[in-house]
Amino acid sequence: MECTPVMDLPEVRPGDDIAELVADRASLEPGDVLTVASTIVSKAEGRTADFADYPVSGRAREIAERLEAVTGEKKDPRFAQAILDESSEVLIEAPFLLTETRFGHICPNAGIDQSNVPDHDLLLLPKKPSESAERIRAGLEKRGLEDVAVIVTDTCGRPFRHGQRGVAIGWAGMSASRDWRGELDRDGHELGVTVQSVVDELASAANLVTGEGAGGTPAVVVRDWKFGDLEGSDELFRAVEDDLVRDALRNWRFDK
Amino acid sequence: MECTPVMDLPEVRPGDDIAELVADRASLEPGDVLTVASTIVSKAEGRTADFADYPVSGRAREIAERLEAVTGEKKDPRFAQAILDESSEVLIEAPFLLTETRFGHICPNAGIDQSNVPDHDLLLLPKKPSESAERIRAGLEKRGLEDVAVIVTDTCGRPFRHGQRGVAIGWAGMSASRDWRGELDRDGHELGVTVQSVVDELASAANLVTGEGAGGTPAVVVRDWKFGDLEGSDELFRAVEDDLVRDALRNWRFDK
Ligand SMILES: Nc1nc2c(ncn2[C@@H]2O[C@H](COP(=O)(O)OP(=O)(O)O)[C@@H](O)[C@H]2O)c(=O)[nH]1
Ligand SMILES: Nc1nc2c(ncn2[C@@H]2O[C@H](COP(=O)(O)OP(=O)(O)O)[C@@H](O)[C@H]2O)c(=O)[nH]1
Ligand SMILES: [Mn+2]
Ligand SMILES: [Mn+2]
Ligand SMILES: [Mn+2]
Ligand SMILES: [Mn+2]
Repeated sequence: MECTPVMDLPEVRPGDDIAELVADRASLEPGDVLTVASTIVSKAEGRTADFADYPVSGRAREIAERLEAVTGEKKDPRFAQAILDESSEVLIEAPFLLTETRFGHICPNAGIDQSNVPDHDLLLLPKKPSESAERIRAGLEKRGLEDVAVIVTDTCGRPFRHGQRGVAIGWAGMSASRDWRGELDRDGHELGVTVQSVVDELASAANLVTGEGAGGTPAVVVRDWKFGDLEGSDELFRAVEDDLVRDALRNWRFDK
Repeated sequence: MECTPVMDLPEVRPGDDIAELVADRASLEPGDVLTVASTIVSKAEGRTADFADYPVSGRAREIAERLEAVTGEKKDPRFAQAILDESSEVLIEAPFLLTETRFGHICPNAGIDQSNVPDHDLLLLPKKPSESAERIRAGLEKRGLEDVAVIVTDTCGRPFRHGQRGVAIGWAGMSASRDWRGELDRDGHELGVTVQSVVDELASAANLVTGEGAGGTPAVVVRDWKFGDLEGSDELFRAVEDDLVRDALRNWRFDK
């Protein structure tokens, strides 16, 4: 398996066609996976925003004041408002905001970035990242680049472990997971680990090459990796009744 | 970046020298990262166990009975006992066991596997996976293979997202994370995302090649990936006071 960054991508502007930008710079082959950082998908989709765009609800003010009290840092209630606008549920209010985005991804600050955003204050995540992936895939097909799976990635933290890692937030042309159910292990027993989240593993692999800085390499081609014959599943975000940690967080409040 | 499985590894037996098994089969170069699935590290270290090894405490019986009641499946209290023996804290008791292992990793069933374990019932995780990684690294050095970082991996699930992915549980010869603090983004602003957990991303990348089945490819060579000039950090497992989800789980109980 090989992960190669697409070199020389320009600064992405609203309306840019990511499939075209990539197709002009990378040789893609059938079976390749193309990962694209959400940051450029959002830029192409015009998902920038400014603090001035946001009114401030009582709820946003309450959240910002609590965050200020808890962290001792100045918090702009308009940022809290932007996060609320992008979210379907607030899971942690303090000492930072953890929410579920409208497309089902749980991450800090609804994934809104304040870095790598020229001329604007905020960069929101794509509205429907799997549709974004599908559009990029269709754009590649239109240019004769068939059978390329596309994954839209973001970088975010997680419980239990320090640090951030790449995750998939949208995908097209492949299943999210390999389902090993029914497969046998080396000793002929059925496997206990059943579902391998390959889109997340591919996003993590690509993120090693993409990096978080000024590198300018938001797209990565993964070659010589095969999904294989296993069954696929497209469930990536847990359903509420299946997510014990979400349940625990609903019944919890930060205490300091 | 390239991930290549080490081919033709044999069934690993207690006392086997993983550095030797790998060195005989792979050409390793300075700067490479070698990932090794915990399953073979555990086998080499004799970390197999049998149900018959475990007495059953009142606590283990209580846990198994509750799991049976909640899941409707037969649960062996000796399995619960094995998990307790490997754990420093139980975070979820039902509908499955989530614990902190003695080396600080939080995962279901203390990472005890029942697949790919010939002749025994259970395979425990290595006792101190970073020391295991260090020993493999030293074994490679002894054979003239200098400057190879080693990561011991496992596969486990996570909150919020379905499915399992590869994670690092031990590492040697590199830092766990790249610290981007102080680095600038494309527009000259300091970065918000500060710590990139590269050992976990490498473990995920390798797991795409390793797989979960009978493939027999538990070791992977990652080549042409560079940590770069960034500061490193070796904190991978969150400290208790930093782990809000652990706190939330301590105050929560599954209700069904
Ligand atoms: N070429 C190019 N690279 C960009 C652009 N915006 C961000 N990047 C790069 O994309 C990569 C990922 O950026 P990041 O902010 O971490 O994206 P995220 O993980 O999706 O939030 C970094 O290498 C950035 O330098 C852009 O408009 N053009
Ligand atoms: N060659 C070899 N492969 C093994 C052995 N044990 C497990 N594997 C392979 O190692 C890989 C990872 O196995 P898995 O049980 O998922 O390990 P874990 O992720 O560390 O729990 C699979 O490809 C297995 O087929 C062994 O003793 N020898
Ligand atoms: Mn982001
Ligand atoms: Mn990123
Ligand atoms: Mn395991
Ligand atoms: Mn595994």
